[in-house]
Amino acid sequence: MASCSSSDECLAPLANTLLDTLLAEDVPFGDLTTRALGIGRKPGVMTFAARHEQVACCTEDVAALLTRLGADAEITTGSGTRVAPGQLLLRASGPAGALHMGWKVAQTLLEWAAGIATETNDIVRAARAGDNAPPAGVAIACSRKAPPLTRAVAVRAVQAGGGIMHRTGLSDTILVFAEHLAFMDPCEGLDQAVSRLRANAPERRIVIEVCDMESAMAAAIAGAEALQLEKFAPEAIQQLRASLAAAGLSPRIVAAGGINARNVEQYVRAGADIIVTSAPYAAKPRDVQVTIKPA
Amino acid sequence: MASCSSSDECLAPLANTLLDTLLAEDVPFGDLTTRALGIGRKPGVMTFAARHEQVACCTEDVAALLTRLGADAEITTGSGTRVAPGQLLLRASGPAGALHMGWKVAQTLLEWAAGIATETNDIVRAARAGDNAPPAGVAIACSRKAPPLTRAVAVRAVQAGGGIMHRTGLSDTILVFAEHLAFMDPCEGLDQAVSRLRANAPERRIVIEVCDMESAMAAAIAGAEALQLEKFAPEAIQQLRASLAAAGLSPRIVAAGGINARNVEQYVRAGADIIVTSAPYAAKPRDVQVTIKPA
Amino acid sequence: MASCSSSDECLAPLANTLLDTLLAEDVPFGDLTTRALGIGRKPGVMTFAARHEQVACCTEDVAALLTRLGADAEITTGSGTRVAPGQLLLRASGPAGALHMGWKVAQTLLEWAAGIATETNDIVRAARAGDNAPPAGVAIACSRKAPPLTRAVAVRAVQAGGGIMHRTGLSDTILVFAEHLAFMDPCEGLDQAVSRLRANAPERRIVIEVCDMESAMAAAIAGAEALQLEKFAPEAIQQLRASLAAAGLSPRIVAAGGINARNVEQYVRAGADIIVTSAPYAAKPRDVQVTIKPA
Amino acid sequence: MASCSSSDECLAPLANTLLDTLLAEDVPFGDLTTRALGIGRKPGVMTFAARHEQVACCTEDVAALLTRLGADAEITTGSGTRVAPGQLLLRASGPAGALHMGWKVAQTLLEWAAGIATETNDIVRAARAGDNAPPAGVAIACSRKAPPLTRAVAVRAVQAGGGIMHRTGLSDTILVFAEHLAFMDPCEGLDQAVSRLRANAPERRIVIEVCDMESAMAAAIAGAEALQLEKFAPEAIQQLRASLAAAGLSPRIVAAGGINARNVEQYVRAGADIIVTSAPYAAKPRDVQVTIKPA
Amino acid sequence: MASCSSSDECLAPLANTLLDTLLAEDVPFGDLTTRALGIGRKPGVMTFAARHEQVACCTEDVAALLTRLGADAEITTGSGTRVAPGQLLLRASGPAGALHMGWKVAQTLLEWAAGIATETNDIVRAARAGDNAPPAGVAIACSRKAPPLTRAVAVRAVQAGGGIMHRTGLSDTILVFAEHLAFMDPCEGLDQAVSRLRANAPERRIVIEVCDMESAMAAAIAGAEALQLEKFAPEAIQQLRASLAAAGLSPRIVAAGGINARNVEQYVRAGADIIVTSAPYAAKPRDVQVTIKPA
Amino acid sequence: MASCSSSDECLAPLANTLLDTLLAEDVPFGDLTTRALGIGRKPGVMTFAARHEQVACCTEDVAALLTRLGADAEITTGSGTRVAPGQLLLRASGPAGALHMGWKVAQTLLEWAAGIATETNDIVRAARAGDNAPPAGVAIACSRKAPPLTRAVAVRAVQAGGGIMHRTGLSDTILVFAEHLAFMDPCEGLDQAVSRLRANAPERRIVIEVCDMESAMAAAIAGAEALQLEKFAPEAIQQLRASLAAAGLSPRIVAAGGINARNVEQYVRAGADIIVTSAPYAAKPRDVQVTIKPA
Repeated sequence: MASCSSSDECLAPLANTLLDTLLAEDVPFGDLTTRALGIGRKPGVMTFAARHEQVACCTEDVAALLTRLGADAEITTGSGTRVAPGQLLLRASGPAGALHMGWKVAQTLLEWAAGIATETNDIVRAARAGDNAPPAGVAIACSRKAPPLTRAVAVRAVQAGGGIMHRTGLSDTILVFAEHLAFMDPCEGLDQAVSRLRANAPERRIVIEVCDMESAMAAAIAGAEALQLEKFAPEAIQQLRASLAAAGLSPRIVAAGGINARNVEQYVRAGADIIVTSAPYAAKPRDVQVTIKPA
Repeated sequence: MASCSSSDECLAPLANTLLDTLLAEDVPFGDLTTRALGIGRKPGVMTFAARHEQVACCTEDVAALLTRLGADAEITTGSGTRVAPGQLLLRASGPAGALHMGWKVAQTLLEWAAGIATETNDIVRAARAGDNAPPAGVAIACSRKAPPLTRAVAVRAVQAGGGIMHRTGLSDTILVFAEHLAFMDPCEGLDQAVSRLRANAPERRIVIEVCDMESAMAAAIAGAEALQLEKFAPEAIQQLRASLAAAGLSPRIVAAGGINARNVEQYVRAGADIIVTSAPYAAKPRDVQVTIKPA
Repeated sequence: MASCSSSDECLAPLANTLLDTLLAEDVPFGDLTTRALGIGRKPGVMTFAARHEQVACCTEDVAALLTRLGADAEITTGSGTRVAPGQLLLRASGPAGALHMGWKVAQTLLEWAAGIATETNDIVRAARAGDNAPPAGVAIACSRKAPPLTRAVAVRAVQAGGGIMHRTGLSDTILVFAEHLAFMDPCEGLDQAVSRLRANAPERRIVIEVCDMESAMAAAIAGAEALQLEKFAPEAIQQLRASLAAAGLSPRIVAAGGINARNVEQYVRAGADIIVTSAPYAAKPRDVQVTIKPA
Repeated sequence: MASCSSSDECLAPLANTLLDTLLAEDVPFGDLTTRALGIGRKPGVMTFAARHEQVACCTEDVAALLTRLGADAEITTGSGTRVAPGQLLLRASGPAGALHMGWKVAQTLLEWAAGIATETNDIVRAARAGDNAPPAGVAIACSRKAPPLTRAVAVRAVQAGGGIMHRTGLSDTILVFAEHLAFMDPCEGLDQAVSRLRANAPERRIVIEVCDMESAMAAAIAGAEALQLEKFAPEAIQQLRASLAAAGLSPRIVAAGGINARNVEQYVRAGADIIVTSAPYAAKPRDVQVTIKPA
Repeated sequence: MASCSSSDECLAPLANTLLDTLLAEDVPFGDLTTRALGIGRKPGVMTFAARHEQVACCTEDVAALLTRLGADAEITTGSGTRVAPGQLLLRASGPAGALHMGWKVAQTLLEWAAGIATETNDIVRAARAGDNAPPAGVAIACSRKAPPLTRAVAVRAVQAGGGIMHRTGLSDTILVFAEHLAFMDPCEGLDQAVSRLRANAPERRIVIEVCDMESAMAAAIAGAEALQLEKFAPEAIQQLRASLAAAGLSPRIVAAGGINARNVEQYVRAGADIIVTSAPYAAKPRDVQVTIKPA
Repeated sequence: MASCSSSDECLAPLANTLLDTLLAEDVPFGDLTTRALGIGRKPGVMTFAARHEQVACCTEDVAALLTRLGADAEITTGSGTRVAPGQLLLRASGPAGALHMGWKVAQTLLEWAAGIATETNDIVRAARAGDNAPPAGVAIACSRKAPPLTRAVAVRAVQAGGGIMHRTGLSDTILVFAEHLAFMDPCEGLDQAVSRLRANAPERRIVIEVCDMESAMAAAIAGAEALQLEKFAPEAIQQLRASLAAAGLSPRIVAAGGINARNVEQYVRAGADIIVTSAPYAAKPRDVQVTIKPA
């Protein structure tokens, strides 16, 4: 989704209630230190700049947050832009009290979101390197395993990094786990499961998670439209593709389990169509350097 | 705070609205796959067990969440308990529909919280190893840099791991940064800042962040009750302690910047009273193994 | 999805905050009339029964709501059950004050949800009558056009009636409108749009809305996996199926626009795989008869 | 309330949290199709126009919602204005991503609210036709039976249509049902109930629901200030008025039960002072035609 | 409303979200002191008792709140009961951590609510003393001037004390201020205002605020059904009643402005039908004595 | 904190959700009277002025609230400014409907907040009068006993008045009550409690509440850094200071219990360093005069 990754125009802004929550969790009653020093009214300027290369994310939301606190904010880098070290992301001016209230909330949001966005983008780029099917290429789909309560920010960051969501939740996609099949009538085969899914969720792709070669072939034969390969090595993926081709089957191949920017190329070369990864959620936040100075 | 770390009795439960949010972000309308397979009413049993050693966290909240979905839940391990691999954390029984709705929300919450709790506890333990001042020992204080919107869960996990919060926010503690001092009248010295803080926030400790030996001594002389040493090497800490002692000063020493379970012992041996760390927030979620089976 | 329609086990319960909202919008401070008459403490019994045949819905949520008000509630009919006139849905006992507070909130919720559930189920049944492809049959998919703010209840009712959601929202399914294509580079053809969608959303089905025969064939040729036929007459659908077959194409046929229980059979006979309808949201609420008596 | 019906100046705007909810329920993470096509940044224009005659409603709220998404919005028709087919309600310009995110949320809100407003206004007009007591005339009061969770929007629409709320809830008006009286001490008569209401809620009108002529006369004699006639035919109303006049009683006559734009005139001619109706909530949403085009 | 004042059966419980808010504002992450002392798991018992005579309020909500924190709670005195000094209101048992978390939130809620309830009840009693029209007597109606954000608790307390709400808000009652009339067309008289109100809000009483004898008579002549006398002395009220009687007018007399338990009797004797007061909101919280002991 | 008290730059604004709540609790659907009179569109001007001397508070929030309702608002006095009678606080212009909707919500907020701010400021001033240790002087710290649900507004008002919060809650400060110590092992002395607190909460001051001279000395000897003297008379404080000095101890002296503007000077002269008071929460709201006139 490279064509969109340097733009926030298709990203929904964070809801007002989330901005309220961000402030409530860090600065419910202002910065006590600023107050106690009696410096709140002094005019100041605050800048946010990338310390290392990164994909910026949530600069628009930070601007909204700082504005709410009484500062003027100017966005210099939109969400989804990959920037060089030192690049200015945002500049704000206003009373010291407002700047100090917003400083860390803003910095933590920018850094955390940039961590996910950058890692996602690194995987996207690494995948492209191993991708012999331009222009579109393999899709990098992030899992649902974002930290609890962060879904809104996490999805924003995945999108900013050029990734997509594997599933946004359980209620709008089909993904069959063995834990589902265990509840089927033992007399029913996988093909009956597939036929039921086809009937009851005809507008969704039928994706089945498989853990070994045998179950993968069985799922494909039963009619799965995509096979989610749980922890298949690249060689196994390659071998599966061959077996599927031999059988005249062509489900999409979804590779999942331990994939990140360092190894994604192997999975792509092995023939995965879609990479599912939780790696971005474990990414180190990207450093954003903040300066605050009297104006 | 070891005496409390194996108990949740002093932990506030997650608010009902947070449980609502957790469900809303992952399973707003039930599990489509379960529905489409028509298996929702089949009775089942779901268990959650530690895959590796870990400090359990949020089992009480998961029980509340599964109960709300229509399952019966039994907590077998309370938050704050360090458990061996394989130990059962929680067991739930109920219709397959309820179990599948709650599965991943519960697992993600348990794993993420256990990641923070375990890492915190690892730092606590490593610090104790280097601690020559029993019984109380050095305090492990986690920073405010938890992912945006997760504060409620993150604090719960820090506490479960035996850590404390360095600050819960800006509004109830004093921590002076250079960015604050920059707004003071240039004619005023650090001692005037301290005297103002003492007057205006007399019930809070006065903590000043310092970045080098010279500013550390200056802050101590000015009356800081604690010095937050930003990225001081252990040797520098040791040297500072000596200088302070020589000057008859004894502020608390707060070491911060890049400290984790692997290096904390050095900081403790060097004389830090308090360790501030963000490392737990970067901890890998701890694997929790889930089984779901027909009853 | 008949196998699931008589059960609520795969339905997510309404969130606590929604129950709070339901009460807040009708009875923020109790029933003034009950108070002014001084009868609040008198014990009473309240029953809810179907006045006409209907598919019950939200009886579980009503039980939760009445319990919160201080009554004891017993569910006698689960959501998703099609009941005969007169069947008891729910019985509650408690102080008159609690019963009067909950009466109309409960009744309005039950009646409105039953309206949608029953209409959905009527369409499902009528579709089955014209369905020559058992066992699974055509799927009845409800649109996003539920009244503003009611999505949670509306989806619950659609599911209770045996329907599915066409889309739960914009963020997790692909549906191409002409209004999207208008923004494509004029030099790019529909096949380029499809190839971009395939690359960027490979786990979602590609559905394209078409308004006439010609654009339908073009979309199919370009690779659409489903064609959403906007206001095609049944004959046109039949004719399109023939043309598609002749061209060796077999996208799913989604019929939309003015379809309801009275005419759905024609669309099914004409070859629609999926029926998209907003008719249930316009359904008359189904009468639920309430009795309240002293105990 | 004709003097106010073409203006929104006395309408409270929808709360920010409701706008958040509207977006969350339809477009939590942007429009996936727009993103996948890579067209989000292209500038565009979106217009909303009445397809048929209607009373516009919530154009101000839609403007706020689209602004929040990053578009510029211009309101061309205020809430409460009755417009001819084709009239422009609202125009917005901005990136395609923003327009597509807001399109259906805005359209559904406008159409649903206009449905209620127009139906309400149709009843108001029809009532006036049969009204021989200008200038004020009979009041059209809508019931509490709006779909669950929609109260805020529904009331806004009723007001836009020139109607009033019969009750906004249970907590601030008196309406006695037989279900209340059943809990009174059997030795107490209706007059004792009335006297208790008069004492305990002296600033509210005492309205009693009655189901037949006899109970109507009894309620009037007991002191009811308004009689809510449940499903009285127009002739019965006329007859009741005569009986009341003969008895020297003049409670307000509230007609309720199955009244709509087609039959309201009869009730007015029969002498009803107030019409209570739920018909607007069952009104078909009024079509609003949307165009989206590149700018 | 004495018959109801010793019961909570007609009081709506505080919403779950409000209980969440109460905890969030005082004890977001548990009691730090309890944790730091390591005493959280020790079993304990907490009691709440009236220190002075008072009308208990919100004991049910406190029980819900303490239960949520992990304690067992037993309500010994329901809301609305006037109790003697020393009477036990509530007893809870559980781990010290839970008891300390809930202590002050519970105590502050009980004391503040009891302050309003008791003051309201004192006014009710004092009014009865001067009331020569049993059984029902004069009504004590509290104003809307409760502290911001407390409406839900304040109304509960007013009701517990036997009072009623003068208005619950602006949207469901008619009260004409001079500030409204100032916007009328200067050619229109007060009678035209009344006739417009009668037509547009026929189910509400028409109450007009007046500030002197002349405007009171004018409002009554124009058709006001109740006159809200702003700061009329008792003698002036008596005189007005006489003038009204002489003119054959009998609007309800609402006395407002500076009325409290000490002077209400004079207003009642002077002939006020309804007393509007804000005094309860200024009432001193009633002391509730808390004991916490190891079990 | 005088240097800050005339400025709102270090005050966090009220969250958007709180503004929503303020409107919802008073004017959910507009002002019925304005609507019924048909005057909503008439342009008008509304002013808010101090009737008596007061410390203004929340004028910024009121401006935000009125803007949301559709009026233009101009702040003429910032929060924290002590103003003379008659001074204009705020002026708004807009349609009568908007002005009437916002009138009382705004007035109640301004008056209530000014009541707290002014009383706090009165105590601050009275304390300064008795303060022989300029420039900083004694600190006026308000307790947590604000009315339930008002914490956000109450803290804002305390800060505007030049006070500080004694504690913002239980989770970030240490305050030992006898009720805590009761759970300690009986063999452990107070010094062990202090040593545990020192270890487990090293960044917080250790404050111990004491009720008599003996326990005060014991706490000081055990290492308390501040003694919170519950209801000590000024003479007792003076005597305690002497005893402490004699023992070479210098904990901060926190005086609490019944202190207000009238008696605070005595406590200051007696040697209290910090005054804890709940008096501002019991302060009478300060009158704000509102005018509303046609423009």
